Parts: sequence; structure tokens; C-alpha cells
Amino acid sequence: MSTYDDLMAFQRETEALSQVAGRLSWDQETMMPHAAAPQRGEEIAAMEKVLHARRTDPRVADWLAETKTCGEVEDAQLRHIRRSFDRASKVPAKLASEIARVASEAQGKWAQAREVDDFKAFAPVLKEIVSLKREEGSALSAGGDVYDAMLSDYEAGATAAELTAMFNTLRPRLVALRAAVLAGPTPAVLSGKFDEVAQMKLSRQIAKTFGYDMTKGRLDKAVHPFSSGSGLDVRITTRTSEVDPFNCLYSTIHEVGHAAYEQGINSDYLLTPLGHGVSMGVHESQSRIYENQIGRGRAFTSWLYGQMRDAFGDFGIPDEDAFYATVNRVENGYIRTEADEVQYNLHVLLRFDLERAIIARDIEVYDLEAAWNERFEADFGFAVDKASNGVLQDVHWSVGLFGYFPTYSLGNVYAGCLNEAMRSMVPNVDAALERGDTSLVTRWLRENVQQHGGLYTPRDVIEKACGFVPSEAPLLNYLEDKFRGIYGL
Amino acid sequence: MSTYDDLMAFQRETEALSQVAGRLSWDQETMMPHAAAPQRGEEIAAMEKVLHARRTDPRVADWLAETKTCGEVEDAQLRHIRRSFDRASKVPAKLASEIARVASEAQGKWAQAREVDDFKAFAPVLKEIVSLKREEGSALSAGGDVYDAMLSDYEAGATAAELTAMFNTLRPRLVALRAAVLAGPTPAVLSGKFDEVAQMKLSRQIAKTFGYDMTKGRLDKAVHPFSSGSGLDVRITTRTSEVDPFNCLYSTIHEVGHAAYEQGINSDYLLTPLGHGVSMGVHESQSRIYENQIGRGRAFTSWLYGQMRDAFGDFGIPDEDAFYATVNRVENGYIRTEADEVQYNLHVLLRFDLERAIIARDIEVYDLEAAWNERFEADFGFAVDKASNGVLQDVHWSVGLFGYFPTYSLGNVYAGCLNEAMRSMVPNVDAALERGDTSLVTRWLRENVQQHGGLYTPRDVIEKACGFVPSEAPLLNYLEDKFRGIYGL
Repeated sequence: MSTYDDLMAFQRETEALSQVAGRLSWDQETMMPHAAAPQRGEEIAAMEKVLHARRTDPRVADWLAETKTCGEVEDAQLRHIRRSFDRASKVPAKLASEIARVASEAQGKWAQAREVDDFKAFAPVLKEIVSLKREEGSALSAGGDVYDAMLSDYEAGATAAELTAMFNTLRPRLVALRAAVLAGPTPAVLSGKFDEVAQMKLSRQIAKTFGYDMTKGRLDKAVHPFSSGSGLDVRITTRTSEVDPFNCLYSTIHEVGHAAYEQGINSDYLLTPLGHGVSMGVHESQSRIYENQIGRGRAFTSWLYGQMRDAFGDFGIPDEDAFYATVNRVENGYIRTEADEVQYNLHVLLRFDLERAIIARDIEVYDLEAAWNERFEADFGFAVDKASNGVLQDVHWSVGLFGYFPTYSLGNVYAGCLNEAMRSMVPNVDAALERGDTSLVTRWLRENVQQHGGLYTPRDVIEKACGFVPSEAPLLNYLEDKFRGIYGL
Repeated sequence: MSTYDDLMAFQRETEALSQVAGRLSWDQETMMPHAAAPQRGEEIAAMEKVLHARRTDPRVADWLAETKTCGEVEDAQLRHIRRSFDRASKVPAKLASEIARVASEAQGKWAQAREVDDFKAFAPVLKEIVSLKREEGSALSAGGDVYDAMLSDYEAGATAAELTAMFNTLRPRLVALRAAVLAGPTPAVLSGKFDEVAQMKLSRQIAKTFGYDMTKGRLDKAVHPFSSGSGLDVRITTRTSEVDPFNCLYSTIHEVGHAAYEQGINSDYLLTPLGHGVSMGVHESQSRIYENQIGRGRAFTSWLYGQMRDAFGDFGIPDEDAFYATVNRVENGYIRTEADEVQYNLHVLLRFDLERAIIARDIEVYDLEAAWNERFEADFGFAVDKASNGVLQDVHWSVGLFGYFPTYSLGNVYAGCLNEAMRSMVPNVDAALERGDTSLVTRWLRENVQQHGGLYTPRDVIEKACGFVPSEAPLLNYLEDKFRGIYGL
């Protein structure tokens, strides 16, 4: 065997173990009996220790040093392995375990503080987390920008400067669109009760409609919807609420987007570093284009309207046009995860600007709540009423996820690009979607994005798929067209 | 930290990883999408490699050599760690992986051969397995008895000589009891259809009745019922058949017995070598006493009759006496796993005698089918009609499980001992069981057997619980009394 083969054989086992660790988390959210939590904590810690030892194994450095390759795929594999090894090696084990320890504590304190709307109770431990993550960021950046080093964990190659340029164009036009939309009359809201078993049944049907392969996955309920796993075992979850079937159905479509990406990767990359979605941003582009540009589009909702009438009978929405408007209803709200297409990115941009300021020490952790509330009122036009509707609403910062939020909006930007490109290249998309046939869309995404896994850099895979340099313009044009249409602006 | 603490910290992680590997198998039988199998194979192999490396880690030998302890619990922990280390170290890695490889191949060939009732198609690979297992047994026995070394993997300290002495008393009296019972009229068989959802619901209720803690476990369906996991996460499975609710309900009770053992272990032993059932035989004693001496007893079946009438309405059995007889119906059959209490051990003893002969080279693998058929007719009085009803019915030998079968009967013998002791020590058991109250029984088993986990040797834990030297006599007396009563002999 060549050195490359040795390295890849070692890596393959690491990937397999990493899938096991991921499935343990899936089990925790879906199947685990609740009193098993303390034991599960030890199981996960033991798995993480095994994985960390493999990621920093000195043999990996030797193999990397000795391996000569010529080939696009091999070079890409090595690029990922080198990045992972460098990342794991740069962070002292003591710091890594300290971050894990404090994050676990902070998550508990965050949940408690959110319960009583008391940011001050959370601020001290958040300060600790920020300090530790800055230390980690410094180790990773090796003299470069600390925030960019954090961002790089989720979106390799992206920089805050580049994202800021995009988002600075996005923000004012979204603020303006939001204000215009909310000035007029709002579409009907869904009312009544919707059988939860029927919601899950329709979810399963929709998942299959979008090409999710149930022989290599499964759909269960969980408190928070997620997609988990790579390769031949990619599982998704959704949730149900009797009064809000859209939550269930669109969570399913969103997670199917993530899962379709993992399921669509070239099978040659199974259990290798190329065998995953390449970044959080590209991942989110897949979930968002399925959920929004396709799932909330006029053509698909006309099919969905019929399906929902079949499943639930007459639910008080008179026709497809009214249903389309209801699906895309824009209304005031505090919560990011409940936001519509128009407002979602405003929530994210707020977090992006604040977390950069925190990491750069431009604002103090203790001033974060005031800064949040000020910015929220500026963009949304009304005041935050309590911390659980404001600075305490998301878990991310409590567990040290800095640099993660912007990938949500980057994903939306990429989804806008992909949608524009796909519609210019594939004829008759809407005619097919009206029949509930998503295969033209999913085939195009599979061929142009999903199959490549980690072969290209995140930005490159989008650019190659679209044939143009990705920018915020297609998303903005799409949103303005769509919502001006619905709201008759 | 002392050397002992270091060793136990290392061991605790190994135990946690071993729980993860176990849960992966649970997932495979209950939740895994079927096309994920190839990836799952790699995941399990990677976990096994990690576990093997830990079990043979040279630091364990150093710690064991350096540790001085004084204390019953510490000594027992060290005894288990030493045994596991010695066992793993004695078998060359190449032989271990060769056994795993051939066993995997053999299992497939066994399934194919069983399909077409062709033992000759299976014999060559079985010969390979036998040869490899003999080699492993020689390495483990270090000059001692090879079969005893195999047995020791499942029942530490047991010897074939000791078991043979027990079973040689058991066999003729069981053959005689069987013949007497089958000479008379047989009780009614259950007929009709029984809703499978209601079966599962009643299963859940029965599991709780027997003290199974659902906050630290769960009940699902699987092709073959099993119990999986230790400590705070012990899961069980059962199966349903519309025409045979006893299969579901008694599989549940059997697995609850295994699970109650794991759940009942002293919580101080969590994720340590003492935190598991001590042997297959003692484990089977718990599943069998729950299933048979309690679950198929006159008192408990009178409660169960009422529960089944509530769940399924009138199912054609007129009263409790008739129901008790139907539950304990004895009839001719080829298959071990479907056998009643009278005949079950005859199936096991046949396998025990044949596998000892194979390992000792007293019979050739190619002559196994003829030997099986001859012995079967001698004990059961009629001929085997096809290999799938005979020598090909069990998976065990195909995957190299030699020395495993006798622990089934040893478990029944132990269950007989425990039942006799428990009834002599605990008053009013049957009055409680008639009300569906199993707490007197489960409390006695928990206090006298389950809580100890691996603290004592298998034989010692039974002897301490009973207050007498275990023998086959209590089981035989119980069976003869019970079935003479039912069949009016």
C-alpha cells in the first residue's frame, strides 16, 4: 500500500467512528430514555476522546508529509485531512476540554437565565466562554484575524470582510421590503386543528416527493428538527403542533434539503473527508432552496394545497392563491427560528454584527443586551419586551458557537444564486412542481452541487454550479419580486 | 490518583465505549434503514478495533501488576479486568480477525443452506469455523481443556464435567416426563386474531408490572427479541404475531428478566466491570424465572387472563384453569426457541453433547447432521424431517458460539434453585401474583442476585442467594410437580 492508502485507511476508520458519535446524538434526541442522560454524557465524552486522539495522531502528520499525489480527488482529500489535523493540533488539549466543560455549564445557565429573562445571570459565564473562544481563535488564527479563524470552522475560506460587504447590501433593502410589506393588509393565518398523525404521514410523503431515500434514512419526531449522518445512513427529524402544520411540513422540507445533500454525494466518497457537505453555508443553501424557493413557491404550494385538503379536509383557506399568501405570511415577531423569508436574515445579521463586536472587544459582554435591543428596534421598528425574546433566545453563544450565525444568511444568499441559475438552465420547473414533481430541481442540485461533497471549496462549488460569482443580488431580487407580488406592492 | 484509580478511569471509558458499540447493534436491529448495512459494518468494525486496542493496552498490564488493593469490591473489579486482559492478550490479533471474517461469511452461508435444507452446503465453512475456534480455544486453555476454555467465555469457572453431571440427571427424567405428558389429552390451543397494537400495549404494561424501569429503557419491536445495554440505558425488544400473542407477551417477560438484572445492579458499579450481569447462565436464570416460574405460574396467569380479556375480549378460553393449561401446553416440535418448559432443555442438551464431541474430534463436522438426527429421535421419539428443523435451525455455531448453548440450561437449573429458595423465604408470593403484583419476587431477586452484578462468581451468587449448593433437583421437582398437575398424571 502507498502512504496515501495508509492514510486513507486510517481516515476511513475515523470517519466511521465519527458517524457512530453522530448517531449517538441522534439517539439522544429521539430514542434515549430520559434518565440515561448521565451515562450518555460519559459515552459521548469517551467517543470524543477517541476521535480527538485520532485527529491529532502523529502518524497523520507523517503520512501527510510523505504523501505525493496527483489528482483532483486525492488533493481534495488531503486538503481536508490537513485542515482537520492542523485545527486539532493547534488547540491545546487542555483548552479544548476547558471549552467543553464551560460550554456544558454555560448551556445550563443559559437555559435557566432564559427561563427568568435575566441576561445578567448569564453574562458572567458568557464572558468566560467568550474569553476561552478568543484564546482558541488566537491559537487557530496564528496572528491573523481571530473572528475569521472562528468562521473558518464552519465555512472554510470565508472572511468577515467579504460577508460584511454582502450583508451591508442585504440589510437596508430587507429593512425597506419588510416595512413595505407590513404596511399593507396581511394574508389570512391558518386556524383550526390538524391531526398530528396525518401531519407525520404527509411529512413522509413530502420527504419522498423531494427525493429523500427512506431506505438510507428515517424520519422521526424530536424537539428541534435536525438532519444527522452522512453516506448510507442520513436521518431527519421534525416536530408536530396540532395548530401549526406548517411547522412540521416545512421543517421536514428543510431537513430533507440537508439530508438530500448528504445522500446525493458521490458514493465513491463514502466514509472519506469528501463524503460530507462541504460547509455550513452550502448545507444551508440546500435546506433553504428546498424549503423556500421551491417549497414556498407558487407552483409547489398549489400541489401542497391539494395534499393538505386531502389530509385535513377543508381548513378554511378558499383557494391556491390564498394558500400561497398564507404560507408566505409576514408578521412581526421576535424569534429568529420562527421568522419568514423577508425577516429571517435581519435576525441573523444582527447576531453577526454583535458577535464580531464582542470578539473584537468593541462591545463588552455586559453591554450585549442593550446593544441587541437597540439594533433590534432599529431594524424591526419595535422594542424587545424580554430577554427570552431577545438576546437569550438562541443557544449558540452559550455553547461557544461564534462564527456560525452568518453561515445561515450565506446559505440563503447561495440558495438565491442557485435558484436563479437553476431556473435559467432548466425549463418547465414550475409546471412539474405544480404536479408535485420536484425531480427536475433535485436532479439539477444533485448534479451541480450535491454530488461533489467536499471536492471543491464552498464558494467554488456554488460558483461552478451557477456559472457566476455568488452575490446577494439574486436573493434580493427574488425576495422583492415574490413579496411585492403577494402583497400587491 | 492511585494506580487503581488510573486503571479504573481507563476502564470506565472502555465500558462507556462498549455501551456505545452495544447500542449500535440495538440500532441495527430496531431503527437502522436497511440499505445502511454496508456502512454499519464498517462502523462496528472500527468500534471493535478501538475496543480491542483498549482491552490489550499494555498500560493495563502495568496497572494490574502495580495495583495493591484490599477490599472485596476492588478485588472483584481487578479479577474481571485481569480476565478480560488475559483473554484478549492470549488470542493473536490475526486469529481474532480471521474468526470474525469467517464467522461473517459462515453466517451468510448458514442462512442460505437453511433456506434450501442443505447441511452439506454449510459443512465446509462450519469445518473452518470449528478449526479456528479450536485454535482459539487452545490458545485460551494454555494446555487445559479446550471446550472448558470456550465455556469460560460465557460462564466463568464452569466446566463441562460439572455440567455433564447435572445434565445426565436432567435428561432421562425430562424424557420420561415428556413422554408421560404427551401420552394424554392436550389442552386447548389459542385461536383467533389478536390486535398487534394491543399486544404491544399489554407488553408495556406487563414490563412495568415486573418492575422494568421505562425511564432507563424502552421497548421496541425486532425480528428476534433481545435485551441490550447496561446501567442507565437497558433496552428490550419483542415481536408480534397476530395469531400468537403469547410469543409477544412471554418474549417481553423473558427480556424484562434480562433487563431487570442489568437495571438492578448496584449503581456504584455503573460503567465498571462489576456493572453487568456476571454470566450468561445467571442472566438466563433471571429471564427464565420471570418467564416460567413466575410468568407461566398458576397465580400470575390468573391475573394475565383478566388482562388479556380486557385487551382482546373473549378469546375462547373459558376460565383461568383452562388458560393456565393453554399457556403451558406441551406439544411435539422441532424448534428449540419454540419449545415449552418440559422439552426446552432436551433441545439444549442435544446441542451441548454434539458440540463437545465436535470440539473433541469425537465426531466429524460432516457427520453432524446424522448425529443430530439420531439423537433427536432418541429423545423426542420422531424423526427430523428437514435440516432447517434440525441441525441448521440455530445461528450459534455458524458464528463460532461453542460453549454458549449449555448456559441456557444452566440458567434454567439456576432459575429452579432460585424459585425454590425464594418461595421458602418469601411468604404470600402467589397471593400477590394473583393481583399482578410481582414486587415481592423482583425485590427478592434484586436483593439476592441482581444487585451484586459481577461481585461474586456465577456459581457463588446463586449459592449465596439460595443458601444451598445449586443442582438440577429443584428444577426437576418443579417441572414434574407442575406438569403432573396440569396433565393430571
